[in-house]
Amino acid sequence: MNEAASLPPGFRAAGLHCGIKKSGRPDLGLLLAEEPWPLAAVFTRSLLQGACVHLSRENLARSGGRVRAVLVNSGNANCATGAAGLEDGRIVGQALAEILGCPPEEVLFLNTGVIGARLPVEPVLAHLEPLLEQARESGLDDFSRAILTTDTRTKVATWVSDAGPRITGVTKGSGMIHPDMATMLAFALTDGRADDLAASLRRTADRTFHRLTVDGDTSPNDTVLLWSSGREHLPEPVFEDGLANVCRDLCRAIAADGEGATRLITILVRGAASEADAALIGRTIATSLLTKTAVYGRDPNWGRIVAAAARAGVPLDTDHLRLTVGGALLFEGGKPHPENEGDAHHHLEGSAETVIEVTLDRGSHHAECWTCDLSPDYVRINADYRT
Amino acid sequence: MNEAASLPPGFRAAGLHCGIKKSGRPDLGLLLAEEPWPLAAVFTRSLLQGACVHLSRENLARSGGRVRAVLVNSGNANCATGAAGLEDGRIVGQALAEILGCPPEEVLFLNTGVIGARLPVEPVLAHLEPLLEQARESGLDDFSRAILTTDTRTKVATWVSDAGPRITGVTKGSGMIHPDMATMLAFALTDGRADDLAASLRRTADRTFHRLTVDGDTSPNDTVLLWSSGREHLPEPVFEDGLANVCRDLCRAIAADGEGATRLITILVRGAASEADAALIGRTIATSLLTKTAVYGRDPNWGRIVAAAARAGVPLDTDHLRLTVGGALLFEGGKPHPENEGDAHHHLEGSAETVIEVTLDRGSHHAECWTCDLSPDYVRINADYRT
Repeated sequence: MNEAASLPPGFRAAGLHCGIKKSGRPDLGLLLAEEPWPLAAVFTRSLLQGACVHLSRENLARSGGRVRAVLVNSGNANCATGAAGLEDGRIVGQALAEILGCPPEEVLFLNTGVIGARLPVEPVLAHLEPLLEQARESGLDDFSRAILTTDTRTKVATWVSDAGPRITGVTKGSGMIHPDMATMLAFALTDGRADDLAASLRRTADRTFHRLTVDGDTSPNDTVLLWSSGREHLPEPVFEDGLANVCRDLCRAIAADGEGATRLITILVRGAASEADAALIGRTIATSLLTKTAVYGRDPNWGRIVAAAARAGVPLDTDHLRLTVGGALLFEGGKPHPENEGDAHHHLEGSAETVIEVTLDRGSHHAECWTCDLSPDYVRINADYRT
Repeated sequence: MNEAASLPPGFRAAGLHCGIKKSGRPDLGLLLAEEPWPLAAVFTRSLLQGACVHLSRENLARSGGRVRAVLVNSGNANCATGAAGLEDGRIVGQALAEILGCPPEEVLFLNTGVIGARLPVEPVLAHLEPLLEQARESGLDDFSRAILTTDTRTKVATWVSDAGPRITGVTKGSGMIHPDMATMLAFALTDGRADDLAASLRRTADRTFHRLTVDGDTSPNDTVLLWSSGREHLPEPVFEDGLANVCRDLCRAIAADGEGATRLITILVRGAASEADAALIGRTIATSLLTKTAVYGRDPNWGRIVAAAARAGVPLDTDHLRLTVGGALLFEGGKPHPENEGDAHHHLEGSAETVIEVTLDRGSHHAECWTCDLSPDYVRINADYRT
């Protein structure tokens, strides 16, 4: 995460309160491009999909993947709202397109918040003009606030290539985070031109958002967008390296701000037969409630971590598994190292990020996954969500 | 669960405190058969396996599946303890076999409790004789107490066939419950003779223990034993129906006593293309933290349940999914029924068991799964486990 993140040239952003959230906090945001620039997207793989996922796919197919504006509201997911929800989404998108004087398929309208409640369309329509008036090059901060739900802070990241072009990312997400195509709303904007925007995004999402979990629950509105003005070409490896940097920062920011989280947990798995194996072990540890509660309790309970790795479905021999927490060796050669538990406890107590490393003897592949600890506050937040 | 459960003829049981648990609660139990009777077992599929899983497999292979005694300690899992742990297990088993005057392979020794700590062998050895003296036909209650860890109550169940023979089940388990072959220590004793003990147990475990979850974490010591004196033959359908009855009761008892649980949750999935599909959807809902926290909050948050079903990996159309909670229809034809949320809330508030029914339009197969809600107490119990 980088506080100095700013939009690439040609993009503007805005955010304000239109009236969906009762709290008075910002709930309507806008990203605006000078021209209908190419945009690649990955959406949730859940079979329950918000109206915005249907409509965005439809619009991108019609516009050939060119987009002028991305409008986002928070506080309501417009999901499981049937034909009426689709119509609500269409009305808002068309209204914004009319003001902009562009074809309706060049406008995307994304929603995040409660599932199953009708979207209040009137307050959104009434605030489209003020939002457009507010849109400015320095508006990233306003936008990043307007898309939050249970998040406690904004999440932006940026990467600047040696050649000049930048990739700026902004995201939201705190609960229902277990992306199975992308996390709930992430945006990457760039003035770099990639060889294949869609392929770069797909590969990068696989290595970043698909390795992030807060609670194992996949959201029906999950969307990652990569939007490029394409001013300057960047070679594929450079572009993807930058994109991965930005997405990784966003994933870490989401995990660190997971609902009720007190610790960001990074899980590194090395020595696997394939990257997929490494990622599967990492994801299994990252979703283990016993691992997550142990971190909350600052307990270097290596037995739970080894047990999680051993049930991932990947062939491994626990006698050849090495485990460290905060660099302290806790398990190797089938045996515990209780003499190092003090060091591991110190790491858990003193560091905002808990680093768990698992090394196998199966090959040379590795993967990095991110999650957070599980605290009583996660339960409280989600037991009280609608009431 | 049936409080009047008792052992089938020819079996005796005992339980006492030998000194593994610091609390002074019972921690050593014994099941004893008159003769070396046939015993079928299913063990954890985790690749981290307790010493008892290795040794039990070894003994059963040598004895041709005939067993005189099953000794169990709680408070220590003797897992991830390397070659020393295997040796500890062997020493105890041999000592008991010597007292009984039977071959060592006719004794099984199971362990449950903390992972990674050496088993204190001396207190176990010192209490073998007293344990044997105490063993009696009415000792089921003593045994059921001695095997508990974070459980708050004992769990026994029984089924009596019309023809006379009975199946009596006893189990323990409260956390690290997500059986992937069996749950952590369940015992079914019978005087009924089955056509194929092992096959009946495997099929029944698939439909009962494999549909149970508390927290998604599979234990490395998971074991289910089915032990039969074989006095009277029972036809396979009758025997398996009885066994399923007993195992289902035990699963419900484990879920109801899940760590921190305030509600037993039963999930019924109907109208699936296959039983495996139905079970997968049920298990996905059962492991959804957002579903479990909503039940804890008494919030009929159907959107989270539909979202969990939709990410299970089973083809389905949410427009043809019907969801009820406590019989109240909350979602059908792609649309919510807010008018029934009051009834669902009443069910969540007033009933110790929350019943969630999901009906698809894909076929005629169904499955039942069991779990519990997620409360702040689950986090507290597991954040404090070792400290």
